[in-house]
This record gives sequence, C-alpha cells and structure tokens, in this order.
Amino acid sequence: MAFQGNGEHPEDLDVDFVHTGPDTLAGRYIRLFWQPVYVSGELKPGTAKPIRLMSEDFTLYRGEGGTAHLVASRCAHRGTQLSSGWVEDDCIRCFYHGWKYDGTGQCVEQPAEEEGFARKVSIRAYPVREYLGLLFAYLGEGEPPPLPRYAELEADGLLEIDTYTRGCNFFTSLENTPDEVHVAFVHRSSAFTEHGLNFDLPTISAEETDYGFVQYGTRSNGKARVTHFYMPNSRYIKGSPDSVGEGWIDFVSFRVPVDDFSFKSFNVKLKHAARNGQQVTNLGDDSEEVQRIAEMILRGECHVDDFKDHPRVVNIQDSVSQIGQGVIPERMRERLGRSDVGVILLRRIWARELRALAAAGPLKAWSHPEDLVATSGV
Amino acid sequence: MAFQGNGEHPEDLDVDFVHTGPDTLAGRYIRLFWQPVYVSGELKPGTAKPIRLMSEDFTLYRGEGGTAHLVASRCAHRGTQLSSGWVEDDCIRCFYHGWKYDGTGQCVEQPAEEEGFARKVSIRAYPVREYLGLLFAYLGEGEPPPLPRYAELEADGLLEIDTYTRGCNFFTSLENTPDEVHVAFVHRSSAFTEHGLNFDLPTISAEETDYGFVQYGTRSNGKARVTHFYMPNSRYIKGSPDSVGEGWIDFVSFRVPVDDFSFKSFNVKLKHAARNGQQVTNLGDDSEEVQRIAEMILRGECHVDDFKDHPRVVNIQDSVSQIGQGVIPERMRERLGRSDVGVILLRRIWARELRALAAAGPLKAWSHPEDLVATSGV
Amino acid sequence: MAFQGNGEHPEDLDVDFVHTGPDTLAGRYIRLFWQPVYVSGELKPGTAKPIRLMSEDFTLYRGEGGTAHLVASRCAHRGTQLSSGWVEDDCIRCFYHGWKYDGTGQCVEQPAEEEGFARKVSIRAYPVREYLGLLFAYLGEGEPPPLPRYAELEADGLLEIDTYTRGCNFFTSLENTPDEVHVAFVHRSSAFTEHGLNFDLPTISAEETDYGFVQYGTRSNGKARVTHFYMPNSRYIKGSPDSVGEGWIDFVSFRVPVDDFSFKSFNVKLKHAARNGQQVTNLGDDSEEVQRIAEMILRGECHVDDFKDHPRVVNIQDSVSQIGQGVIPERMRERLGRSDVGVILLRRIWARELRALAAAGPLKAWSHPEDLVATSGV
Repeated sequence: MAFQGNGEHPEDLDVDFVHTGPDTLAGRYIRLFWQPVYVSGELKPGTAKPIRLMSEDFTLYRGEGGTAHLVASRCAHRGTQLSSGWVEDDCIRCFYHGWKYDGTGQCVEQPAEEEGFARKVSIRAYPVREYLGLLFAYLGEGEPPPLPRYAELEADGLLEIDTYTRGCNFFTSLENTPDEVHVAFVHRSSAFTEHGLNFDLPTISAEETDYGFVQYGTRSNGKARVTHFYMPNSRYIKGSPDSVGEGWIDFVSFRVPVDDFSFKSFNVKLKHAARNGQQVTNLGDDSEEVQRIAEMILRGECHVDDFKDHPRVVNIQDSVSQIGQGVIPERMRERLGRSDVGVILLRRIWARELRALAAAGPLKAWSHPEDLVATSGV
Repeated sequence: MAFQGNGEHPEDLDVDFVHTGPDTLAGRYIRLFWQPVYVSGELKPGTAKPIRLMSEDFTLYRGEGGTAHLVASRCAHRGTQLSSGWVEDDCIRCFYHGWKYDGTGQCVEQPAEEEGFARKVSIRAYPVREYLGLLFAYLGEGEPPPLPRYAELEADGLLEIDTYTRGCNFFTSLENTPDEVHVAFVHRSSAFTEHGLNFDLPTISAEETDYGFVQYGTRSNGKARVTHFYMPNSRYIKGSPDSVGEGWIDFVSFRVPVDDFSFKSFNVKLKHAARNGQQVTNLGDDSEEVQRIAEMILRGECHVDDFKDHPRVVNIQDSVSQIGQGVIPERMRERLGRSDVGVILLRRIWARELRALAAAGPLKAWSHPEDLVATSGV
Repeated sequence: MAFQGNGEHPEDLDVDFVHTGPDTLAGRYIRLFWQPVYVSGELKPGTAKPIRLMSEDFTLYRGEGGTAHLVASRCAHRGTQLSSGWVEDDCIRCFYHGWKYDGTGQCVEQPAEEEGFARKVSIRAYPVREYLGLLFAYLGEGEPPPLPRYAELEADGLLEIDTYTRGCNFFTSLENTPDEVHVAFVHRSSAFTEHGLNFDLPTISAEETDYGFVQYGTRSNGKARVTHFYMPNSRYIKGSPDSVGEGWIDFVSFRVPVDDFSFKSFNVKLKHAARNGQQVTNLGDDSEEVQRIAEMILRGECHVDDFKDHPRVVNIQDSVSQIGQGVIPERMRERLGRSDVGVILLRRIWARELRALAAAGPLKAWSHPEDLVATSGV
C-alpha cells in the first residue's frame, strides 16, 4: 500500500471502534473472540474476584477443587455483588441471603426460600479456559469458537507473564503496534537503543493476512522487523531481551478494554531455553506507579527523561505518548503520513468488520497459522 | 401476607422512593416528618456547621446561650456560605459583609446598608428540637406536626448515641430492616452468632400498623423476634448486647438521606440500668474507616471475613452488603421470595403514600403508641 | 451613582460573563486582551510546560536561547501532548514521532515522512512578551493590540511576584475588588486591621473611566481609598505593607480564568526603594495548602479564625468568602445594596461590552493612562 502523506485520512473514522460496552458495535465485535481476563496464578482456589471488562462487571472465582468460573456480577435475588460472598466446593454463595450458584450460573440453593424456586433462577455464566498462564473467557453470545493456540509461545523455556492497566482507550494501544517509528523517539532513552532497534528510522509497510496483518519495518540495511497483528486486539513481536547477551524473545500482548477510558494489557513473553517444558512466572503489575508518573509528566511537573533509569521506563514512555493523545483521541484532527500505513490498515480492517457486523453481513473468519515467526530486524 | 416466591414482584417499582431532593416526590414526603439532623453534644455553643440533608444544604448553629437553630445555607446578600461566619448571641453573622440573621432567619443587621433594608430581608429557618441526645428538625412546608416521642428510649439507663454515613441510597438500608434472613449470612461471623441470633433461619412475616409495620422473624422453636418499623425511615429493634452477660438493649435508628448516594444513620441505644434518669454518651462516628474497608472488599482486595475481629465488624458487613447492591440498586432485575415479605410490604406502603401525595389525596396519619415493645426472639 | 438598596438588581444577569471557553462570548472578549500566562522565572530555557487558560490547553516553552513561545497543545500528526517532547534550539519536537515545530507553529521536520509534507503542516502559535517578571500572551484572533504598560510598576524598587490558583470562577474575584466593605469582615483578623484599613466602614462610590473604573471607599474622616479596575480583569490598589513601618506598595493583580471553575491570579507588587532599577523576586505559589484549608473550613471542620496567624491568612480568608459563594454563584438570588455599587458597575460594563460583541457592534477602546495613582485612604 503506497501512501504519499497528504495529511488527511478520515475515511474510516465514521466507524466507532473506541466504545466497547455491551450494546456497542465494537463491543459486540470484540466479544466474538476469546479474551484473557485474569492471570491464572493470581486466582487462588476458594476465592472470588470482581472484574470489569469492556464496561461490564463479572464475578470470577476458582472452586475449591481448582476450576475457574466466570459468572454475572450480581446475585439474581437482590443484586448483591457476588464476589463478596463465599466459594464453597465449585459454587459461589451470595453474601446477603446465601443463594448459591454453580459454575454454569444455575442457582442450586436458597436457604430461606421454598423448594422449587432455586431451579427457576440462574445467572449468566461464561466459558473459561486456562492457557499460557492466563484465564481466557468467551463473553459473546452463542457457541464460543475454539480457543486459539499460540504455537510461538508453546516452545520450551520460561514463560513470563505480566499485566498493566493504562488510563487510555485500548484502541490507542492497538494503533501503537504497527507504529514502529515511535520507537526511535518515545523509547530513545531505553534498552531499545542499546539493543540496536533505534539505529535508524524504518520504512513501514503492512499487508492484511488470514490472522490480521503483518507489518514490516525495513531498515536502511535492508533488514525488516516483522510484527504480526492478530485480530482483533493482540500482537506478536520479537521482543528485546532484558539485557544484552540474552536471546530475543517471543512476545504476545493482548489489549483488553476495561472500560472506554482504560485497558488492561496481558503480556506473555517466552524466553527460550534448552529444558523440557515450560516454567511460568508471574512478574506482577505495577500500573499504579507507572500511571502516577505518567500523569506527573503530563501535568508538566517533570520530564520523561527524568525516568531513564526506572525499571519500567518503556511502560512509562508508552503511557506518556498514549495517554498524552487524550484518553480518547480526537482522530478527526490528525494529519497522517506514509509512516502511518500500518495504523491506516488497522483502522480499515476494523472499520470494514464493524460495518459488516452492523449490516449483519459476513465477517472475515480469521485463522491463526502455526508457523508464524516474528523477527527483530537488527 | 402469604407469598409463594415466584421471583417477580415489580408492582411498586414504578414509584421513585430513592431520590429525595427538594422537588422530588419522596423528598417532599420525607420532609413531612421530623428528622434527626445532628448529635446535640457535637454542636458547641457559639459555633455553626454546614449540613447537607436530602440533597439540600443548611446552616446549623447554636447560639451563645445554648439554643440551636437551623437556617438556610447562604446569606441572602451575595450567597456566601453562612457557616463560615460568626455566631453572636443568638444570631449568625455573615463572613462576607457582616449581615446578621436571628434564629427565625430574619436579617437584623446590615452594617454597610441603609436603615430599613434589613427588615425586608430574611432567609428560611426551620424548627429545631433537642431530644434523645439528638437535634431534630422539621424541613417541610407549613406547620410542623408534634415531635414524636419514643417511650421505649425514655427509661432510666445509659443512652448511647452513634452515627455513621454509608455510601449508598438510604432506601437500601430501610429494606435491610425487615430482612432478617440476612443476619444469618451477612453477620454470621459476628457477635450475633455468639448471642444466639443465628441458630437457624427465621420465617418472616409482617403486618402494617398505625405507626408503620411490625415484623416477626419466627424461629423453629416458635419464638419470634419482633421488630417495629416507624414510617417513614426509622426502626426499633431489641438489639444485641455488646458482650454476653449484658442485657438486651432498646435500639432505634433513623436513616436520613444526605443525598441520593449516601445516608446518615442516627443510632440511639438504651442500656437499661437501675439508676435515676438517663446518662447520655456519644460514641462518635468512624464511617470513614468503615467505608474505606467496604470499598477495599468490594474491589476484591480482601474479604469481609478478614475483618472478623474488627470492632465495627457489623457495620463493615452491612456496608458491604448494602453498597454491594449498587449505590442505587437496579430493583427491576430482582427475583424476590417468601423471605422478602417485609421488603415488599415496606415498598407497598411507601409507594401507596407517594402515589397519594402525587395525587394530593389523603396521606395516612401515622401514630406512635407508647407501649411498643421489641423482642429479640432468642 | 446613587443606590437605595432595594435588594433587586438583576438587569445585567442575562449576560453570561462566567464561562470563558473558546466559543463563549466572555471567552471571546477576554481573549481580545493580553493576559499573563506564566511567571517568567519559572520557565527555564530548554523546557516546555502544558498550561490551561480559559478552558483551553496550550504548550508553553522557552527555546535554548531564552525566547519563550506559546503554541497549540497537541501535535498536528497524532495529537500527542507537545509539552512531553523536547525543546531543541528554538523549536519543540514531539515525543511520539519527532515532528518539530518552530515558535511560529510551522512544522519544520518530520523524520519519517516525505520531503514537502512538513511545510504543509502548522499548529497555532500565539504572540508572547516578557514584562514585569511575567509572560504575557495574546490568545485572540487577528493582530494583537499593543501590550499595555503599567507605569505604576516601573519605578525603582523590588518587584515581588506571586501567584495563586483558587477553586472558583474568576468573576467572583473580579467582583471582590470594588467590594471594599468585605475587608472589615473577611479580613478583620489580619494585618489590614493593624494597618488601619478596618477603622470604620467606607462608603463606596465608583465611576467608569477610560481604562475601566475608579472606585472610592470614603471613610468617616473624609479620606478615600482609591482603587482602579482595568478592563477586563485586573486591578491596581495601594496595598498594605507586610509589616508596620514599611511603605505602602503599588499592587496590580490579573485574574485569569483557568477554566470555568478556577482562576489563577498573577500578583505584582512594587516595593519602592531608593535604588537604580528593579530587582524581581518570585515568591512562589502555595495555592494547594490554601485551597485545602479553605475546603476544611467550608466543610465545617474548623473556622477561619483558627488561621489568624497563618502567613497566608488573607488568601485563606478570601478563598473562604469567594469559594463559599459557590464555585459559580447563583446571582439571580442576590439582594444587593448601596455598598454594592462597584459590583453593579463592573457587571454593567462587562454586560454592555459583551452585548456589543454579540451584536458585532463597536467595543469601547480602553486606554491606560501613565499617571494613575491608587491611594490607601488611611
């Protein structure tokens, strides 16, 4: 796709891909795909957690036997938040009057009510799978599709999981993926420079594929970094190692809206190693500190370069550039150029699919090949 | 009232009993009754306090001679908040230009204005009475009714006052009173269990009375706990003692809306004692800590059972179950059962009275008998 | 202007002088005048700051050579907040993709784009001048008028600058200037009493002038304090010295809206001294503490008299009286009197000019005489 930057490119901006509540077009679309909802190791047996995804609340719990379940936020009786109750066996009991639900959402006990009432009552439940150290759920209507497999993360080695929540709309983060030029500026004071990713500005190109799109960032030496975007909201890169000398890592991130003003990124990195099988480790979540620092920078109290040596410098830098576009950017004012071809393609695909969904026309059936490889381009 | 739980009971939900601002139907209704507005002992002579009740702001002050007055929030001149001014004798002087008002709201001095202007200016004032260690006010239009007397709290002994503010609509708390089943779940890890209140699930029944309704929670041993609800927003129970060995207490609570999203509960407990007269003690208000803990629990950062040994565990538990229904619950989604007969009766009475008020029809004239007794049922 | 307080004076309240966003009438009017936007000494060479004025965001930066520039808040490309980028020479470079703008707003570099695109792109820029230790900018359309000179602040001596941000609409503060009676109440426990300003209540009169209006506060001894209001939003008083024995100071304040709910006051005081030229000192900004204390007082947690000995007592007192009128006061409820003649004149002038602007009629051309003198009246 050739693009002579003329600075105007609003053709796909009539479609709303930023609002993802249950009744929105983008919300209906993203719910047609399995989404990571929690880090497996953070949900202990016998506990329940309230979670919010795409402007909707849910109750996530793990039965005493270890099986995870996702059900509606509230008890059918008086609307009490179920996560405040008790997990018993494979069920959750409401804190207010003890109504008990199993993992399918069926009410199985109502201590103070007549026999026969419970079986008439159920709450919504959602399929859950554990994979790659994450809990995935299907939040859409009807039968779920098969859970996608990510062969690139199934090799032997150390699987590192981390998450962060960032205070801006998820789509701003999606757009940042095929925007490889930003690395030379946003991350110029980071390990990316040390690893050679910033030695010159890449020329960007992108093509739609069976799974989303592939993007090439070609350097002046002819080498291209190859990044894959998986529709609708994840990407696979060859990520930079934590320190010089370590090997490049396979790195998939899922950007899941929490609401329209923030998203949670579930990040899975495979560090290859000659061992049998995988070890999974959870690096945690330090979003609160990162968000606090980004807000200080955006208020002008300090500069991002003051945090060069912070262990989360890359996250701070991305937070500043993404939140700095506005929590929901005003895209109609943009002036796009040739380096934005990936951003333009991303919007074109999303807009096409949302228009098809609105018209009840056929949606593209994305498929995920097993032999996908990302490269670093240095 | 027999009720075979079929899980649908929306007939009184067309009436809005949650919003209580000055121009709302429920707000007009609740203003027809004297309401506690402050703890007497907290208002020192010569001081003024801004208070907010039913989404309306007021100035409460106590003259240097000891008489309490309630007037409008703002000075008639330029709208300055009167509580920031000075109490002088039995009057309050505005902080901005020194306009002075007496306890009837009449402007009695305007230091920089012509003679004769002051007498044309007044602000609204409200009748105030001191009773049971509380300040009661009449915030409605027209002549106030007589201040109700609570004979059950006038016996000899120790009168303990405390207050709390909870971050949910007041009506959720009203509904919690005739909902005795909740005690077995919400308060299962509390002194209620120790005092025998949780030995089995009561069968609930309720009947309208001259003062509101009476509710019976009948145990399997045939004994019933008797609780009285005083229209429109208070209740009288036989409360559990603080420790085993102490006698059961008479306990009246008033749930007064602050705004539509929070209410203040004024709680008066009489601990009977063979002495002459009453001693009044003010136990204070630790709502901020309780609210903070409840919010942590509702965010899933901890579980209510982690606070079993907290001195305010019962308040924490009620805060979790009530705020957990949503700050204003979505009642249309409920599935009610036979244990909800008290809740249903409460709504039926409120809805009937609000419909009568809307139609300018006659309202029921509630009366408060002197010989009312609540019992504990154990 | 004679005024027999009848307590009604709403004739100019149909004109909206409180909302100052870019598309409002008052916003368009105030943008026709140079406004102070920052303290010069607070903007170091090579740094950029995000600033908000009249509900609009801007990027203020000082080139490495020392020249200050004011440009739009966001990069034209993808809308990133420019203040997070880098100042290079006399330009600012965007943090996201390195687009570079000069001080006129012209894009002069786009590292990843084709030659020729940059010259088509520019962002809005605003004239900036340094004067009296402040940065002034012209935010309106078209050619700026000449920057006004304040001869009263150009004499030899020490020029003290300070700023504060107060959480109420700017017009409440404008109205406070010709309201000299407030000093006897709001500031009765302050150095104003010590300096004799409170020995009795002045009689207020005011007259429109070429620059705005002059106001006289005449004491019972016949002496008048003379204060000048410069249209549209600044005033010149003879200010009280910090301590007895010091001379009276010349004191000009500019009240600049930040948004409709807060304003920033830029205060310039000249302490005369027999030296050659001026020394400028920046006393800083302690608004956060003052605002926090004012809010505590307005919540009733303490009284303003508890802060008699606070070094910022006058600011605390004014914050309480001004925020205490409501963030945007409900002026239609007022009862004005003869002491409000200055307030009434201020509104009359503003309303007349805004009506003329709305009708595209001629606006009064204000001029600022060189020989203006304010006096203290004691």
